[in-house]
Amino acid sequence: MQLQTAVTRLLDIEHPVLLAPMDLVADAPLAAAVIRAGGYGFLGGGYGEEGWLLRELAALVPAARKTHCPFGVGFITWSLARQPRLLEIALEQGPSAVWLSFGDPAPFAPRIKAAGAKLVCQVQTEAMARQALDAGADILVAQGAEAGGHGVSRGSLALVPALVDLAGPDVPVVAAGGIADGRGLAAALMLGASGVALGTRFYATVEAAGFDAAKRRIVEASGDDSLRSVVFDISRRNVWPAPFTGRCLYNEHLRRWAGRELDLMRALGTEGERYAAARVSGDFDTAAVIAGEASGLIHDVPRAGELIRRLVEEAAGLLSAAPGFLAENSRQSLASMEAK
Amino acid sequence: MQLQTAVTRLLDIEHPVLLAPMDLVADAPLAAAVIRAGGYGFLGGGYGEEGWLLRELAALVPAARKTHCPFGVGFITWSLARQPRLLEIALEQGPSAVWLSFGDPAPFAPRIKAAGAKLVCQVQTEAMARQALDAGADILVAQGAEAGGHGVSRGSLALVPALVDLAGPDVPVVAAGGIADGRGLAAALMLGASGVALGTRFYATVEAAGFDAAKRRIVEASGDDSLRSVVFDISRRNVWPAPFTGRCLYNEHLRRWAGRELDLMRALGTEGERYAAARVSGDFDTAAVIAGEASGLIHDVPRAGELIRRLVEEAAGLLSAAPGFLAENSRQSLASMEAK
Repeated sequence: MQLQTAVTRLLDIEHPVLLAPMDLVADAPLAAAVIRAGGYGFLGGGYGEEGWLLRELAALVPAARKTHCPFGVGFITWSLARQPRLLEIALEQGPSAVWLSFGDPAPFAPRIKAAGAKLVCQVQTEAMARQALDAGADILVAQGAEAGGHGVSRGSLALVPALVDLAGPDVPVVAAGGIADGRGLAAALMLGASGVALGTRFYATVEAAGFDAAKRRIVEASGDDSLRSVVFDISRRNVWPAPFTGRCLYNEHLRRWAGRELDLMRALGTEGERYAAARVSGDFDTAAVIAGEASGLIHDVPRAGELIRRLVEEAAGLLSAAPGFLAENSRQSLASMEAK
Repeated sequence: MQLQTAVTRLLDIEHPVLLAPMDLVADAPLAAAVIRAGGYGFLGGGYGEEGWLLRELAALVPAARKTHCPFGVGFITWSLARQPRLLEIALEQGPSAVWLSFGDPAPFAPRIKAAGAKLVCQVQTEAMARQALDAGADILVAQGAEAGGHGVSRGSLALVPALVDLAGPDVPVVAAGGIADGRGLAAALMLGASGVALGTRFYATVEAAGFDAAKRRIVEASGDDSLRSVVFDISRRNVWPAPFTGRCLYNEHLRRWAGRELDLMRALGTEGERYAAARVSGDFDTAAVIAGEASGLIHDVPRAGELIRRLVEEAAGLLSAAPGFLAENSRQSLASMEAK
């Protein structure tokens, strides 16, 4: 099965399914698996550890070139602003797109476009969408608050069509946040989006970097089992600028500190150490599993390629059956209108 | 145009579009207009002012009977528990459905079913959905946090399919929160829902009870211009049980007090008076316009019937064109699979 949209045409891919550039999780093996399956893979440039970026690019780029597949790199915009040379490192490898999220893309837009890469801007509000369009975004990613990790407060269902209206016919919109199956993909297309970006769903795949224990927690979680807060940011001594907060699954640590952020800051001498150790050892009673409300729709840990096939097949089935919702006489009158 | 789903069959209506029983706003004229247009109208029984309920029933029921259209009544469950006789008043009039939201429906379910009415349970989490299904819900309304008024925190896009999976094939799900046009209706059907319930969108119609100034603010608001908080609950001396909060549009009052709820409580002698007066006079710099993120998709104040026609026509167009997303060879291979 294959779905065609403005995004598959613009990015020259088979399926309108993008790997969100999750910090640390979206590394070369995961991005390569998504690319091989006909989706679009963004490396998670994250906070910009130069060594990580060089290593993952060295692993991904030859694989992408060999199969003539395009690839991209994603950055946290406010973090990239502190070490803009990382953008140069990425652009040297010839990505066909650069994804910026969480901050003003304007300072980086000219350089990205001059390098011939598409500018993909993930935004969380209508105001941010206007800023990204002013900066020349080629694609808008509309990220709803359902998403795991950092985000703002608006839900996907009303955000996506509002950004489609703002972007107009020339800038395709990709829906992100709360999508994990073919139903979400088909719904996104009905909202006017031209594709989806998946984070949590790709985290729970075989190739994703990360502990099996974290992936298992995503599989076991219901959609109610996460919270948007600043607890994990405080705990890892990395508090983000407003208005961004981070969603992760509930665990012992989050239950203890949610709503007591000031106390957590006061206890950070001990708690910060404990948290850092838990991240290294994979102790997810303390360390956060950064995942979203789509966890409730995730029941296994497939390979990324199998996931994409399944997603597209389910969406294709729903979309091809969609006219069946029309009453018989409505189908006839639509057909006669089209015939005229 | 006409769309057929499990909900249109179960409720015996033409269009899978439900009027959410908004407190005070969903009165007899609005419910009657929705019914006449082939949707399903719930009177907003709200906090249960007996005089209001008797008056609105007296206005709605003869109109519904004359046209042989079904109608319903909605209640705030925790409030109904304080004055259960209101349910008897409603049931005496023969509604075909009763909508309960915000609290455990179990104590009222047997009485509603014994009266021959369908039990419609609006829920905001997977846990609440399980409770409603245990109580015998005939329809689940999945209300995302995008919605105006009271709600919880989960976004519609991941909540709807999760509840569809929980409810199974025998209990249809209706999507609510963040829906204002045919795109939202078509998307809801792709997510597995069998219809939509609209609040904010029906508030901004000619027939809705409420000040024109409030409707104008919904038209002017972007989707970013609302906040989920407890400010208006405190201000009108009506703080809800956890976990419910209320979304309204930003105005001077909300900007002043959001994040300073304790100060607001301390100032309630003055602020409560001021707020009550503003509600009566329609001063929406102080009184809340209770509306959701769908406001960004609302650009006019049509008649309710015109709105339903427009919504269904847009959704029908999208659904009938949906197979066009499939690549040509995919359409052919699906067709040959169906032929076998």
